[in-house]
Amino acid sequence: MRIFVLGGDGFCGWPTALHLSKLGHDISIIDNLSRRNIDNELEAQSLTPIQPMGIRLKAWKEETGRDIDFFNIDIARDYDALLTQIEAQAPDVIVHFAEQRAAPYSMKSSAHKRYTVDNNLNATNNVLAAIVESGLDIHLIHLGTMGVYGYGSAGMKIPEGYLEVEIRGENGHSVAQEILYPANPGSIYHMTKTQDALLFFFYNKNDKVKITDLHQGIVWGTQTEDTKRDERLVNRFDYDGDYGTVLNRFLMQAAVGYPLTVHGTGGQTRAFIHLQDTVRCIELAVNNPPQAGERVNILNQMTETHRVRDLAQMVADKTGAEIAMVENPRKEAAENDLHVVNERLLGLGLVPTTLDEGLMAEVSDIAVRYKDRADLTKIPCVSYW
Amino acid sequence: MRIFVLGGDGFCGWPTALHLSKLGHDISIIDNLSRRNIDNELEAQSLTPIQPMGIRLKAWKEETGRDIDFFNIDIARDYDALLTQIEAQAPDVIVHFAEQRAAPYSMKSSAHKRYTVDNNLNATNNVLAAIVESGLDIHLIHLGTMGVYGYGSAGMKIPEGYLEVEIRGENGHSVAQEILYPANPGSIYHMTKTQDALLFFFYNKNDKVKITDLHQGIVWGTQTEDTKRDERLVNRFDYDGDYGTVLNRFLMQAAVGYPLTVHGTGGQTRAFIHLQDTVRCIELAVNNPPQAGERVNILNQMTETHRVRDLAQMVADKTGAEIAMVENPRKEAAENDLHVVNERLLGLGLVPTTLDEGLMAEVSDIAVRYKDRADLTKIPCVSYW
Repeated sequence: MRIFVLGGDGFCGWPTALHLSKLGHDISIIDNLSRRNIDNELEAQSLTPIQPMGIRLKAWKEETGRDIDFFNIDIARDYDALLTQIEAQAPDVIVHFAEQRAAPYSMKSSAHKRYTVDNNLNATNNVLAAIVESGLDIHLIHLGTMGVYGYGSAGMKIPEGYLEVEIRGENGHSVAQEILYPANPGSIYHMTKTQDALLFFFYNKNDKVKITDLHQGIVWGTQTEDTKRDERLVNRFDYDGDYGTVLNRFLMQAAVGYPLTVHGTGGQTRAFIHLQDTVRCIELAVNNPPQAGERVNILNQMTETHRVRDLAQMVADKTGAEIAMVENPRKEAAENDLHVVNERLLGLGLVPTTLDEGLMAEVSDIAVRYKDRADLTKIPCVSYW
Repeated sequence: MRIFVLGGDGFCGWPTALHLSKLGHDISIIDNLSRRNIDNELEAQSLTPIQPMGIRLKAWKEETGRDIDFFNIDIARDYDALLTQIEAQAPDVIVHFAEQRAAPYSMKSSAHKRYTVDNNLNATNNVLAAIVESGLDIHLIHLGTMGVYGYGSAGMKIPEGYLEVEIRGENGHSVAQEILYPANPGSIYHMTKTQDALLFFFYNKNDKVKITDLHQGIVWGTQTEDTKRDERLVNRFDYDGDYGTVLNRFLMQAAVGYPLTVHGTGGQTRAFIHLQDTVRCIELAVNNPPQAGERVNILNQMTETHRVRDLAQMVADKTGAEIAMVENPRKEAAENDLHVVNERLLGLGLVPTTLDEGLMAEVSDIAVRYKDRADLTKIPCVSYW
């Protein structure tokens, strides 16, 4: 199949592009390199020495003999260039990672809030409008987040996108109805993902666009089988207070001898998935498109849930690192339970990489190996809301 | 109070600015004249001869002795200019009409879809971000639409914004929970209003912004007590296929001897409100802000519901006009019932202007009076979806 990977230079997009290329698909990466530019703005950089796109693609070609095309397009601003590529290449699938994806970054200032809203919503709307304008039968796969659900689910397992509720009618009888899970975003970033869901709902209803929306947990790990093949293919690893996610931050902190920074009580329970499983889930989504006329296909892309303080303890036990409780910069519940339905991707064949097996490899292969590149001043989260 | 009226040059915004000025409030209109520019694009114009803002404000001053300020700012693009005015004037209330508000226009082409999403979401987010950045305690009143609910409510009265549902928990027990009414938008325009609701939800939850969201029915009528005072104050009247709303189109069609164009079976039931009641509702919202820390205050701003074919028959009976059934350009249910809760504005003192009493005055005072200005080629709806 011909597949576009929007945001294919990013943390999840890059290994996805390689994985799908390895499987024999023809891949075009479309990316405006915004994530690298934000590194410049934040004066932070990936712990791993990621290479420019030209070197990445040359290494992949040398390793596998396979070509990946790259187009530097800002899909939120340059609709015409996006449409031109869609019409010229007629992709079967578009995988859409091309959004600003850090909650702390989205809350840094008014300008960051506005960039995130403007970028994410115009990007998603432009992709959808271009698919409709092209008239092509394209399957759109979007990377959403478990965060659209909000946390603290009143003793209920979080279902896959839709919630069955009973509504009391005028005549006193109750009517069962399935609705989009009521959104409860915790940051501007999460809010844009809940607004994306309404874009998908509308274009699917009105224009019959085939859409898979993957509500992903927090991704941990750095490398996949493919990015490990050559150091020039190495994937990015963020540990800074804006873009570093909780578990990767702990791993890096353990490697450099920095206390593991637990926000608040660490009682937040979150959903996790390893990066290798992420790319496998995208493969499963590519192979299992919705039927014509089917509603938006929503799957929960996560494999395990953990309380943050338990994660810190697990990393501390394995590495001897200390734990430091710091003030929680976010407005969120101090403690919450989280039970998530994830049967659909498991049913399609996903075999989870567990934290227990992958954790120490990650610490030794990445965090220890590149620890000299670390800038410890970038660790604290300085974005408060 | 000092009040900003964003979109104060438009169909609802202009009479609102006058009404609030008459009540003694200090009014600043902020508008980029986009509605007049869209008239140029569509080669259509208001049936009534609306005057430039300078003449409008001079006439108001002559009539009442009261000043209204005007700032030509594109609030979706020029955040800094908006923030500057908010910080300089410290308004108590901002009334936000500054969105592209026609469903057919939003569906004309890919470019129109993208303009509507980009304009409406950035406008609303910019206002909210500016209120937060200013640090001022400002009450934001937003004009939403009954269309966010979708139509066809399964024998249930549409509540005011929030819906109580029963959710089955893991233990088999049901939990009652109040959620934002599940959105079911019928056009890109309506979709942006459902996305606005998520912006309001988030900024209210995170930043405690005081927000009133008025879910308005279809507005009919042209003039208010204030716009009638001098012909230079006349309000706009749209009858074209994009911006004309159903009842005003019937009234104009009756006046010029054009058959009343009923889309589909005319079995669609819609909610209506007279323009005079709209401005009164804004006054009630200004006087009844949410308490600090209160959730978004959502009120249904409508006074009666009618089936479209019944409306056509009513106008035909009073005027002798013919009725023409034409193909429905929209994707929507051919027939639906609609029952709406609107006790809250009535409870605050709204006394509805009924169709029965106001209809013929509208035909004779406006539609007949200005019928020589009509361009009949603009009547058909040419935006299909």
